[in-house]
Amino acid sequence: MTRVFNFSPGPATLPEPVLRQAAEEMLDWHGSGMSVMEMSHRGKEFMSIHAETEDLLKELMGIPANYKVLFMQGGAIGENAIVPMNLIGATGKADYVLTGDWSKKSYKEAKTYGQVNVAATGEASKFTALPKQQEWKLDPGAAYVHICSNETIGGVQFHWTPDTGRVPLVADMSSDILSRPIDVAKYGLIYAGAQKNIGPSGLTIVIVREDLLGHALPVTPSAFNYKVQAEADSMYNTPPTYAIYIAGLVLKHVKKLGGMKAVAQHNEEKAAILYDFLDATAFYRNPIAKEDRSRMNVPFWLKDDALNDAFLKGAQERGMIQLKGHRSVGGMRASIYNAMPIEGVKALVQYMKEFERQHG
Amino acid sequence: MTRVFNFSPGPATLPEPVLRQAAEEMLDWHGSGMSVMEMSHRGKEFMSIHAETEDLLKELMGIPANYKVLFMQGGAIGENAIVPMNLIGATGKADYVLTGDWSKKSYKEAKTYGQVNVAATGEASKFTALPKQQEWKLDPGAAYVHICSNETIGGVQFHWTPDTGRVPLVADMSSDILSRPIDVAKYGLIYAGAQKNIGPSGLTIVIVREDLLGHALPVTPSAFNYKVQAEADSMYNTPPTYAIYIAGLVLKHVKKLGGMKAVAQHNEEKAAILYDFLDATAFYRNPIAKEDRSRMNVPFWLKDDALNDAFLKGAQERGMIQLKGHRSVGGMRASIYNAMPIEGVKALVQYMKEFERQHG
Repeated sequence: MTRVFNFSPGPATLPEPVLRQAAEEMLDWHGSGMSVMEMSHRGKEFMSIHAETEDLLKELMGIPANYKVLFMQGGAIGENAIVPMNLIGATGKADYVLTGDWSKKSYKEAKTYGQVNVAATGEASKFTALPKQQEWKLDPGAAYVHICSNETIGGVQFHWTPDTGRVPLVADMSSDILSRPIDVAKYGLIYAGAQKNIGPSGLTIVIVREDLLGHALPVTPSAFNYKVQAEADSMYNTPPTYAIYIAGLVLKHVKKLGGMKAVAQHNEEKAAILYDFLDATAFYRNPIAKEDRSRMNVPFWLKDDALNDAFLKGAQERGMIQLKGHRSVGGMRASIYNAMPIEGVKALVQYMKEFERQHG
Repeated sequence: MTRVFNFSPGPATLPEPVLRQAAEEMLDWHGSGMSVMEMSHRGKEFMSIHAETEDLLKELMGIPANYKVLFMQGGAIGENAIVPMNLIGATGKADYVLTGDWSKKSYKEAKTYGQVNVAATGEASKFTALPKQQEWKLDPGAAYVHICSNETIGGVQFHWTPDTGRVPLVADMSSDILSRPIDVAKYGLIYAGAQKNIGPSGLTIVIVREDLLGHALPVTPSAFNYKVQAEADSMYNTPPTYAIYIAGLVLKHVKKLGGMKAVAQHNEEKAAILYDFLDATAFYRNPIAKEDRSRMNVPFWLKDDALNDAFLKGAQERGMIQLKGHRSVGGMRASIYNAMPIEGVKALVQYMKEFERQHG
């Protein structure tokens, strides 16, 4: 068995020890005589897995006591509707900050549920830079301000926390949750599809301040009503049990590595190796403003698009996969989430140098 | 390792060969160097798994060409809202047939999205029998007629297909999909949470006739819009990839067993063993009308509720778990889905006899 370096933007590479443990426990979890997949979600075995996973997330992220953690379904694209359905009712309007494809998608979907305003946009820079806080036109009457903390396609990331005054800040953190310490108290709501840094697809994490519950529009399906799910401890409907179990194994692994600070340092090192190389060559190009560069998704372009296929083929031959850029922007993209080892990034840079020597 | 006989109503027991294969392939699927969990949903590896799973479901269930198969999220409770959101717009009204807790829940949720009528109810029998077709008061102007083909809590099951004329029949088949041959052409839409007969929780199967697409209410979230998902081949948002993979392994296993007819025969045998015993003793009781008894979920009551704890304890000691009845009705319940071996049912009956001898 040879494992590849998988640069997929999500679902994405997972820590090998997590997969080993999952394989070992597949037919018989801790002597229960069952796979986790087979457990009643209301049985004591799964209830303990559920509670442990929730507690670990609270511990690692330092989630304050006045926040609820929900395990839901539908991913961030589902949340694009579920967030306004649950929150916009407080005042009927919301502010959105556009920083790339994902925040634009969130904004478009939210329009169905209330008055939605663009408070700021990175469009002038073609989304290669975040709009500076002083340019934001925030509405103090908004029910919330929505950002995407890391744009998976564009490769920009917030390295600062916006100040939205008394208006709750809502962040789609799908692609950078758990990648660094954050101050949860500065957010009203955080949501994330699990399939980048947490576990398999099919699980959505929602972290919501309790006082924001209770404003759901009447059309909100019960299964996607935060208050209903908070009161049912995420068991109003059957939760995605196996995905929660894998998430729990990933969280244990992250804790063992030293928690958020250690993980952030590792991610910074990996990103620096790649960006330092990109800045030192004219053969490859990353157009993102240095202060806004993502440490999770690094898009780059070869000086000649005609070389793309050869680049990808050579990478594949060297055991490096999923480097093709998103179809909407072309080029390449290296997604280097928590579970991408530093060896993977080093191997990529070494190959990029080699390819440049051959084709430069 | 000793595997238990797991009578959980869902998530439920899975075929052991499926779990073995999943364990073996966990770190490296077919030489890809990746777990299925780590695969990009748009990569060729997962696309092949996705297509194969869809094709197998179509083959096993005999799904006609004018139906779409969607892999979605949110379970049947999510679908309680998603179905009316997508279908009721055609005429603004829908008929619901109430046969127990699950169909009542579907009916209540649907009220938010249009005019919803009770076309028939089993309430007079306290839901121990299905309302006879001749008693149904169907509205020819309804957008659809909704039934629950098997009530997981109550233990009644349709052993006939209702005739709803030109009005599309919609069925929640969560707890009996894939348990027997059905004529899909008689249904407009079939939906099912995967966690009983198909795979892990977190995956919802929707089988919908193409001409029913396109009536979604404006408030329908894009991720839960059948037309949007049908056009995107269930990839408008990231699907629950690992759950789809396990479903595919289960479907292959079902095909190897001989398909729907063989599975139905096996399920009939298992149910007969249990019901024949229940009918031959006064110590245990199942109150359901014989012609409407579920072959998937068999609720039963001991003659004295004070013996319940002892019964469950003895079962647990013999490796039989999750026999406690639903908290709303008490008593016991044996869920004997496809993957419950006949040996499990025989062991249960043997224990029931033994317990009766001791306490009868």
